[in-house]
Amino acid sequence: MLNILDNETVALDENDNSVIIIDQTKLPNDIIFLKLSTAKEIWEAIYRLSVRGAPAIGVTAAFGIYILAKAINTDNFHDFHAEFIKQKDYLNSSRPTAVNLSWALARMENVLNNNKELPILAIKEALRLEAHKIKAEDIEVCRLIGEHGLTLLKHGDGILTHCNAGQLAACKYGTATAPIYLGQERGYRFRVFADETRPLLQGARLTAYELVSKGVDVTLICDNMSAAVMQKGLVQAVLVGCDRVAANGDAANKIGTAVVAAVARHYGVPFYVCAPASTIDFSTKSGEDIPIEERLPSEITEMWYQKRMAPPDVKVFNPSFDVTGHELITAIITEHGIAKPPFTDSLRKILT
Amino acid sequence: MLNILDNETVALDENDNSVIIIDQTKLPNDIIFLKLSTAKEIWEAIYRLSVRGAPAIGVTAAFGIYILAKAINTDNFHDFHAEFIKQKDYLNSSRPTAVNLSWALARMENVLNNNKELPILAIKEALRLEAHKIKAEDIEVCRLIGEHGLTLLKHGDGILTHCNAGQLAACKYGTATAPIYLGQERGYRFRVFADETRPLLQGARLTAYELVSKGVDVTLICDNMSAAVMQKGLVQAVLVGCDRVAANGDAANKIGTAVVAAVARHYGVPFYVCAPASTIDFSTKSGEDIPIEERLPSEITEMWYQKRMAPPDVKVFNPSFDVTGHELITAIITEHGIAKPPFTDSLRKILT
Repeated sequence: MLNILDNETVALDENDNSVIIIDQTKLPNDIIFLKLSTAKEIWEAIYRLSVRGAPAIGVTAAFGIYILAKAINTDNFHDFHAEFIKQKDYLNSSRPTAVNLSWALARMENVLNNNKELPILAIKEALRLEAHKIKAEDIEVCRLIGEHGLTLLKHGDGILTHCNAGQLAACKYGTATAPIYLGQERGYRFRVFADETRPLLQGARLTAYELVSKGVDVTLICDNMSAAVMQKGLVQAVLVGCDRVAANGDAANKIGTAVVAAVARHYGVPFYVCAPASTIDFSTKSGEDIPIEERLPSEITEMWYQKRMAPPDVKVFNPSFDVTGHELITAIITEHGIAKPPFTDSLRKILT
Repeated sequence: MLNILDNETVALDENDNSVIIIDQTKLPNDIIFLKLSTAKEIWEAIYRLSVRGAPAIGVTAAFGIYILAKAINTDNFHDFHAEFIKQKDYLNSSRPTAVNLSWALARMENVLNNNKELPILAIKEALRLEAHKIKAEDIEVCRLIGEHGLTLLKHGDGILTHCNAGQLAACKYGTATAPIYLGQERGYRFRVFADETRPLLQGARLTAYELVSKGVDVTLICDNMSAAVMQKGLVQAVLVGCDRVAANGDAANKIGTAVVAAVARHYGVPFYVCAPASTIDFSTKSGEDIPIEERLPSEITEMWYQKRMAPPDVKVFNPSFDVTGHELITAIITEHGIAKPPFTDSLRKILT
């Protein structure tokens, strides 16, 4: 069984018959592992956010399509391919906005197409290897982000992070947490401040949980306390993840990220975006071109509460992301190195 | 009985035996009035935030010390004075940051000291008159802040406010809401954005409630959405209240105010602090000298929730206020006029 303390967020069971995930909707009160064996179970786990975080979703989809392909009972490639595509398209519909989902499924489909001359059993083996490769690469990408990020930090630094770009959002290390975990292993003794991250509290429920589990010194704060901790000189760096970085360095991430960035700028605290190369989208010119998902008012007025906490007739605005302008970003940390302003040049240099 | 829609937040019962307040911890679901008759009841109502907001706390303390003084059963001034001071000091210990609490109690004590030659019954009458005067002045002060504030706003402006500096925080009009209410009466058609204000959600529960009750166009957002609404050009001004303004213009107010100020600065939105003269404390040189109350971790990890929403072992930092540096403040709106930077000069000029 995979264990959150062993840094395994997504895994296969020993017989390759199911994908095992930790149910993130139940944290931190209940640690429940889900065994996903059918396409419907995998689809719903992604849709309901039992597994979330772009990298973790990608790996879940890769393992998912592998176990579904493995169960296809035919020796005929045409039949096998047709069933594979059907299952792939179904999984791909669970969260159409998560780029890693379609990216991972496309990689798996390529394996199928590149090995069509092989026996079905060998194709299944190739799919198995590719899924494990996607997971291994994710771990390595995060580790490298950690290594690069660590060069920007000093022993004993206070680090503020927003939302969860941790190991729960990836397979190991996480993105924004990677420098923290590597530093923890090497005795850096960071003091982390975790924004609770309204409305769904991923910071309180997930980031605080995983950092506490790993013995990291973490203090939970509300999203509106960043100025207070920075005023007190408690924060030497901000580390956040991202959902998409535009060609000019504008970064879309969980709502509130741009707020932290503006506060960090005012108090002279460097603001670092941890971005796997897969999230950097040169086809998006600037943040203005990034579509911002809006979610239900009830997430703010009711969710998690015993009672409704706002008057019945109030209007609500609930954007799920905001865009941090490149002018507020000190550096973008990728697995290939650190990009500094101007990002239009530095991102291309690093990634090509 | 006082009625929230009639703009009465703090009152005396008809026999001057108790202070009547609306229990703000129960809003917006339940409208419950509390009769506070003992020192302990008054202290706890302030500490537990059943009554909150610097002006409302001041009036509650003034009415409170009056009814407690009225109940002192002695004809001896020395005994009367000793008991008065004991009760005053006790009430004064309920909350540290808002200066109005000690300010109102000091005014009441001055009445005592200035009338020591009178019979106790006459002193009690003088205390009664002073308490009512403090309330009447509060209403007039808020109205004047509204008049001055309105000169800074344009028809149709989007206004962001944080926490509750509304009529619930004062006796009528509120401070930050005074320009909004006056503008509402005069057809300004403001569009207000109310920060929910974690951890205790005064923005969602109180500000959204009172603005909706008065027919103001209000949209509830989480504290981390200020950048998102400013990026979209939806906000032309920020209006906040304050608990204490230092001589240099640094302003202590509900936690998160400094965050909004830094974000407003980045997006070029003017940031206005609405401050009754009673909150301006020339004896406090700068924000560094303002004591900041820290409250219980459970307000963040448990309060309002069905379950605990953070891991059991996580540290929590829960400051109730932050200090907005004077460099982030566009103007301070008082009942005597509008102070602009440099505040060290302008505040003294306006108030003397």
